[in-house]
Amino acid sequence: MSLLVVGSVAFDSVKTPFGEVNDALGGSGTYFSVSASFFTDVRLVAVVGEDFPDEHINMLNHHKVDTSGVEKKPGQTFRWKGSYDFDLNTAHTHDTQLNVFADFKPNLPENYRDCEYVFLANIDPELQASVLDQVKKPRLVACDTMNFWIEGKLEALKKTLSRVDMLIINDGEARELGENANLVKAAKKILSWGPKTLIVKRGEYGCLMFDEKSIFSAPAYPLEFVFDPTGAGDTFAGGFMGYLASCGEMSNEIFRQGIIYGSTMASFNVEDFSLNRIKKLGKDEIDSRFRFFKGMTHFEDL
Amino acid sequence: MSLLVVGSVAFDSVKTPFGEVNDALGGSGTYFSVSASFFTDVRLVAVVGEDFPDEHINMLNHHKVDTSGVEKKPGQTFRWKGSYDFDLNTAHTHDTQLNVFADFKPNLPENYRDCEYVFLANIDPELQASVLDQVKKPRLVACDTMNFWIEGKLEALKKTLSRVDMLIINDGEARELGENANLVKAAKKILSWGPKTLIVKRGEYGCLMFDEKSIFSAPAYPLEFVFDPTGAGDTFAGGFMGYLASCGEMSNEIFRQGIIYGSTMASFNVEDFSLNRIKKLGKDEIDSRFRFFKGMTHFEDL
Repeated sequence: MSLLVVGSVAFDSVKTPFGEVNDALGGSGTYFSVSASFFTDVRLVAVVGEDFPDEHINMLNHHKVDTSGVEKKPGQTFRWKGSYDFDLNTAHTHDTQLNVFADFKPNLPENYRDCEYVFLANIDPELQASVLDQVKKPRLVACDTMNFWIEGKLEALKKTLSRVDMLIINDGEARELGENANLVKAAKKILSWGPKTLIVKRGEYGCLMFDEKSIFSAPAYPLEFVFDPTGAGDTFAGGFMGYLASCGEMSNEIFRQGIIYGSTMASFNVEDFSLNRIKKLGKDEIDSRFRFFKGMTHFEDL
Repeated sequence: MSLLVVGSVAFDSVKTPFGEVNDALGGSGTYFSVSASFFTDVRLVAVVGEDFPDEHINMLNHHKVDTSGVEKKPGQTFRWKGSYDFDLNTAHTHDTQLNVFADFKPNLPENYRDCEYVFLANIDPELQASVLDQVKKPRLVACDTMNFWIEGKLEALKKTLSRVDMLIINDGEARELGENANLVKAAKKILSWGPKTLIVKRGEYGCLMFDEKSIFSAPAYPLEFVFDPTGAGDTFAGGFMGYLASCGEMSNEIFRQGIIYGSTMASFNVEDFSLNRIKKLGKDEIDSRFRFFKGMTHFEDL
């Protein structure tokens, strides 16, 4: 089934202990789309500036990502500049230029409005809500957010949360949003606001999925070479939602497999800068790494 | 089969956001012994001062822990004073009084020397080696260590490591010992020094087991109420080694189950101060939590 994503398309300048790139393709919508494209059809809503080259649009289309919802506006594309130290779990932001993204008003093309799976990447919760207003009959809506909105637009965020099925956020954000240092308690509070499922991303420590009845825990893939963690969270969400959309049906079991696919995609993404690794992936290596996760977590029950 | 442990028996004064205790029973040898006692016979080697009350010895004996190797020496028992903030992963040490522990020279009673499973808790690596000299034919030797020995007695530590089958340490210690911010690379280096298996404890993020051929990842039990993390690592090691000794045979599959039992025991331990929770456990609740771990990590393979 088709999958809609609203997010950023950006140029990232990133420095890590292993190298650096300037004005490389990035953005939550970009990482999500390419990652999800290995599982299902993706329709991307975003905005870029006049400086955005056709080659990136072509790459997305090559992955069968529908870019008819990517508007080109006068001005420059969103730019982010950041770095990571040896602790690759923490990004240090040096510069953010919103440019055309500052006035982003998501406007869904007619053929996007019947998408059944929807992912609202980390943007203003009011914009996330405006996207939901434009979708006819979504079956599953997931969203991301960040400390900037938790601290600055909490009421709007809670309104959006009351309309989504799933929230996918980082560990620290979950504790901040749920106002509790204990993650289990924070998760309970967040679930009381509407989402039926909460997925907490923990970088190299994997992730946790909470719902009313159960908790699922998945590790991260143990990598010897991590080049650049930029986009890992959105690549995770793309693999997760892409797999769900490809299944059509929904169950806790399918969500669990989706988390493993998401973790798999994220693990490839951090092996190189920008989308350099994931844009060249094949389904065989994806499935092979999924199976590695099975071997890494399996133990015999009593 | 019988399990030998050499470690500390101590009085801990601990403050956490949820309460505090003064001169409560603690020490690596104590936590390890009681935890392992739910699975197998344990023989403890340690030293205490004249102030050490019989009630603690009686509690250990009640759990069928052999304390004939616990020497009582003139002077005071080892004391540790520390606290935890809301980030319960980090202990802040306020005071350490080694007392009789400063001159600890492990001396194994004759009936201890044929133990087949041996755990060398976190003590001077030269003392760890002296214990190995006294054991006749160990089948499996595991040890712990800490930054103090990594920084101060690296050569002695490496000598001890060349004689053990397994090293069980914390995440930060593994990266420090393996001299690499990347845990997979650090693990490879450590394994090259002798141990066939490395278990890395990561607090609320669970643990990882590395050997030449495989990696196993286990989460921590998601607790809503964590009162005091003191002793969690030794309680983990006790459950792990206790289960291994109870099986008699050895395989990667048994090690994996052992890690789940270790994680189970550690999760109970942090629910109360000192050994208050684990000393009252029953096998039913232990097995029930083991099964929860299975449910929390299971997903269908492709």
